[in-house]
Amino acid sequence: MAISPLAPKSFAKLPPIAGARMASCEAGIKYAGRKDLLLMLFDEPAAVAGVFTRSKCPSAPVDWCRALLAGSNEAKARAVVVNAGNANAFTGQKGANATLATARAAAATANCHENEVYLASTGVIGEPLDAPAFTHYLDDLHARAHSDDWHEAAKAIMTTDTYPKLATRTVDLNGHSVTINGIAKGSGMIAPDMATMLAFIVTDARIGSGLLQSLLSQHVGSTFNSVTVDSDTSTSDTVLLFACGGSSAPALDSLADSRVEAFSAALHALMHDLAQQIVRDGEGATKLVEIAVEGAVSDVSAHMIAKSVANSPLVKTAIAGEDANWGRVVMAVGKAGEPADRDRLTISFGDVRVAMHGERDPGYSEEEASAVMRADEIRIAIDLGMGEGKARMWTCDLTKEYVAINGDYRS
Amino acid sequence: MAISPLAPKSFAKLPPIAGARMASCEAGIKYAGRKDLLLMLFDEPAAVAGVFTRSKCPSAPVDWCRALLAGSNEAKARAVVVNAGNANAFTGQKGANATLATARAAAATANCHENEVYLASTGVIGEPLDAPAFTHYLDDLHARAHSDDWHEAAKAIMTTDTYPKLATRTVDLNGHSVTINGIAKGSGMIAPDMATMLAFIVTDARIGSGLLQSLLSQHVGSTFNSVTVDSDTSTSDTVLLFACGGSSAPALDSLADSRVEAFSAALHALMHDLAQQIVRDGEGATKLVEIAVEGAVSDVSAHMIAKSVANSPLVKTAIAGEDANWGRVVMAVGKAGEPADRDRLTISFGDVRVAMHGERDPGYSEEEASAVMRADEIRIAIDLGMGEGKARMWTCDLTKEYVAINGDYRS
Repeated sequence: MAISPLAPKSFAKLPPIAGARMASCEAGIKYAGRKDLLLMLFDEPAAVAGVFTRSKCPSAPVDWCRALLAGSNEAKARAVVVNAGNANAFTGQKGANATLATARAAAATANCHENEVYLASTGVIGEPLDAPAFTHYLDDLHARAHSDDWHEAAKAIMTTDTYPKLATRTVDLNGHSVTINGIAKGSGMIAPDMATMLAFIVTDARIGSGLLQSLLSQHVGSTFNSVTVDSDTSTSDTVLLFACGGSSAPALDSLADSRVEAFSAALHALMHDLAQQIVRDGEGATKLVEIAVEGAVSDVSAHMIAKSVANSPLVKTAIAGEDANWGRVVMAVGKAGEPADRDRLTISFGDVRVAMHGERDPGYSEEEASAVMRADEIRIAIDLGMGEGKARMWTCDLTKEYVAINGDYRS
Repeated sequence: MAISPLAPKSFAKLPPIAGARMASCEAGIKYAGRKDLLLMLFDEPAAVAGVFTRSKCPSAPVDWCRALLAGSNEAKARAVVVNAGNANAFTGQKGANATLATARAAAATANCHENEVYLASTGVIGEPLDAPAFTHYLDDLHARAHSDDWHEAAKAIMTTDTYPKLATRTVDLNGHSVTINGIAKGSGMIAPDMATMLAFIVTDARIGSGLLQSLLSQHVGSTFNSVTVDSDTSTSDTVLLFACGGSSAPALDSLADSRVEAFSAALHALMHDLAQQIVRDGEGATKLVEIAVEGAVSDVSAHMIAKSVANSPLVKTAIAGEDANWGRVVMAVGKAGEPADRDRLTISFGDVRVAMHGERDPGYSEEEASAVMRADEIRIAIDLGMGEGKARMWTCDLTKEYVAINGDYRS
């Protein structure tokens, strides 16, 4: 499959994180000739935080991780196993058995308790996952695991992705350097609801699970939950954040610690970076589109309106056709069900204001608007003129390739 | 444009309705070489009922009709003017001026008050509608209007439709025959919210506007509001129902009248028929899909779940690819946000049960499921196993042709 034209020009080079090692291999779970199994190991128990899909039909590994984290600020992680090609979703008791078998195998390999093993699966829904068919690879992965294998790890979790997604940030905390690395996958079945897709983020900061969870939950709304490829929320969405504690920086204990702000900003930037890489790899995408809403009655209302525009098939096909069809933006604002007043609405494509006060801008130029549409990256700004609510979302265009990719995904 | 493969094999032949006449012409509003202007006339003031889009950015003709009907059970209609090619939506004061100019011209032609003229426009959003460029045709249309021109009327209101939509029902009310005729248009920007698309229904029954409105409002939920092509709710959706009163049947006065049930059933059947014709003409459609949900906690919840499945791009592209990808149905149920329990869920494609009790059916056969997908018409049945709530929706597949049609609609 050709690499998305919106792919980053280069991949981030992720530095080692002390105490985190990983290895990946071709386990033949579904794909031939590519890696599909990742084992990540933490030498010491890592603090862990997670956010998961809000789907009422979550996958077995989501159930597994959620149970480990439920109500506990003391959760620790020693290993993570991720497979691609099979989501282990809607697989009933067999699915739960497969997660337990995988966790036990990884625990035996890593010499830890099964409750210290986190799991994620991505791929086809409804196919039973045959754990014994791949768990025998774990010993070898454990033996080969090293701290400098992030690029291969990101590749091993891909499905319809056309490139691996990696990001890193380093932050200085009163003279002590802290690093945050993240990898993610996602290309289709991407829609904002809690966390959408798989992402694994690791830091060498010393930080407790409670604070880690607060920061992750705080940032997920404006990052992963603000991208959409196709409005379809996955059964498997998982973001896991691990803190290994190998940095020399003294522990971050509470939100009152003034250093937390710097760490939090770096974490947000990394999550935003990964989320952007996902939407840039939207199935069939040729355009990256930012929907910036302001003047809504609240931030929540702004988000709903941005989402309505970002998910509209008619807006997205017009963008694919490089058609400055702002009337469809009006339609999508109107159908959102949120407070809006047609006659106060202002819409711009890039720097070109196309509509204001409920009608086409008096200075509207088809040529200027069309020129905006020919770019790879397009910003659509919507001012509702009602209040102070703001939100941004990122989406991609809807092309014939999206239909082609999804017409025969299973075959 | 090729006629939809899902088009009805033949068009209904609509009988004249006493007191209703119509004519249409090529006014060149946007399209060349096809009709785009319809004038319908009622010889005597007709009772009228209407339902309109819930969009917060409604078109000027929707504003116009809604104002005529607001709070009045005494509304009467003498003329209807419909144009295709320009929606007169998001056109500000110019748009309101255009509706007034059109209504005044039609009132002068029909020798009635402008408040007895109903308007609808369909086509591009945001282009000012130049009323004087077509109102001069109204005198000629008035002179040519006759009672047997329903097929041409249905053609004159088409935009991306590939065939005209017509339906008729006759009902016997204690020995008196009553006829209901309807025409509709719609192919894209079709999603259920109040009424989606344009439809004009005329009956010769004698029936007051209040009762007429009750019946129309009662049936719109299970007919027009239960079809979706692309989840995009139009700015212009309008269903108008007119009662001319030319039948010999004594007036229908109240819901307590036992004959109302027969009339209501015929009206429902006609509305269902027109709604099905619209979804069968979904842009790029090759498959008609019924989503039948039962066992939900309420009918409203069942409708929300059916809508989530019917609007899912991943479900719809799988259907286009004839892929029995029931895992995507699980995904769409899960993301609906309505009460659901993965482990009680049963899903069937046609007569083939593919999933039950939270996993693939033990007797699942890929060949049997795939055979269902090759048909033109596919039924997906979902039993949530939670309660008594039921709903049905109808949609179509999402194909490359949908993307092609909507990538350059304005040009």
